[in-house]
Amino acid sequence: MDRAFFATLSDVARAAIAAELERGLVADNKLEHGFDPVTEADRAAERALRGAIEAAFPDHGIWGEEYGWTREGAATVWSLDPVDGTRALVCGLPSWAVLVGLLEGDRHIGGMIDLPALNETLVGIDGETRRNGERVRSSGCTALADARLSTTDPHLFAGPEWDAFERVRSASRVTRFGLDAMAYARVATGDIDLVVENSLKRHDYDALIAVVRGAGGHVGDWQGGSDFAPGRIVAAASRSLYDQAVEVLNG
Amino acid sequence: MDRAFFATLSDVARAAIAAELERGLVADNKLEHGFDPVTEADRAAERALRGAIEAAFPDHGIWGEEYGWTREGAATVWSLDPVDGTRALVCGLPSWAVLVGLLEGDRHIGGMIDLPALNETLVGIDGETRRNGERVRSSGCTALADARLSTTDPHLFAGPEWDAFERVRSASRVTRFGLDAMAYARVATGDIDLVVENSLKRHDYDALIAVVRGAGGHVGDWQGGSDFAPGRIVAAASRSLYDQAVEVLNG
Repeated sequence: MDRAFFATLSDVARAAIAAELERGLVADNKLEHGFDPVTEADRAAERALRGAIEAAFPDHGIWGEEYGWTREGAATVWSLDPVDGTRALVCGLPSWAVLVGLLEGDRHIGGMIDLPALNETLVGIDGETRRNGERVRSSGCTALADARLSTTDPHLFAGPEWDAFERVRSASRVTRFGLDAMAYARVATGDIDLVVENSLKRHDYDALIAVVRGAGGHVGDWQGGSDFAPGRIVAAASRSLYDQAVEVLNG
Repeated sequence: MDRAFFATLSDVARAAIAAELERGLVADNKLEHGFDPVTEADRAAERALRGAIEAAFPDHGIWGEEYGWTREGAATVWSLDPVDGTRALVCGLPSWAVLVGLLEGDRHIGGMIDLPALNETLVGIDGETRRNGERVRSSGCTALADARLSTTDPHLFAGPEWDAFERVRSASRVTRFGLDAMAYARVATGDIDLVVENSLKRHDYDALIAVVRGAGGHVGDWQGGSDFAPGRIVAAASRSLYDQAVEVLNG
């Protein structure tokens, strides 16, 4: 797999999204009802991504948030979240992302977190993560007490999960909320040290794993393994920090 | 007061901050200890802002987060938060801001929310708010059920304040966290409709008020008045939305 192909995917998705948002402004000005520019951007971006992938790799499978499965069971699979963070986009915030994951069987061999509003494209593949072409590395933080923690919305935690998250939060240095996939990009660039989330779908997390790992970080589930299907993810700047977070989560 | 003077303040603060962060990267590489680039950037930016203000308006008072009062009691006062959102800056997030408020007595007559990482400067003065020179307006949203709500950190609310915020959150359409002053900038640009916060200091809120009001929004306290000293702020896209939020907060 060529790293440059991810740049193509970023280009086609950004163009599709920009076109729909532009159309949305026009629709809004005309008071045309029933047109949701963010939903349309989401769908248009997935169609654009699928088109590019089908043209280059006609045998690969594709899973997308909007259009579901194509060639389910293929040996190589692309996992697409054309607009992650639609609520951020609706609120004029720059943390929304185009997410693309690449899997061989269960192995996450590549991933892209593309942040169009910040003009940052992070691609992890072949054990290396690059932002706009330049190698990036996690902070390497190894102490929970020093860690900059993030989670998207504390209200997603309920009952024992809330308690578990609160234990990690109390033990960390600083906590930031509301970042969606941008939090994982910031683990890869060394700016955030730890992300603890739940309720993620596969199109939310498939892209993140190779990006964080390629920067030297560790990604696993809340139990110390890598069963991502329940949607509970811990991404850390180092294996040691991951282990400490898992220990505190399981208090 | 000339709107262009705020652009000068943005320029001198950005230059001072960039220089300290650059020095921080060097210090970090040399493993020089005891140097906190964000704290140094905060201080250097306040010195730069004070220098520019003193040169242009030697009779004006200045209140700054880092260096306190100069000419307390002056008829016209500048209120400075050279780096609002230091935790965001530490985490590589673009929501940190340079905040400048301008007061005559108790009246907030001008304000700037400068977002260097996004290259956006919002200035509210003479009843108009402009972003990079272009007029902006709040969404005008008048229904809490449609409102995009934001607050920086839900953990700042405790006891009855938590319950009050939860009532507003439940009644709103969508909630975003972690934005610091950027949330108020997004009220002014029509992207977010409502911000509810507590625990703000005067350097946190003095800049925001004229920016939101100049865009057609309403800013007041949690009781329906404008006693900002206790640090409880509601900023809304319209007076009607503000009134609804206050009613639910006191529900």
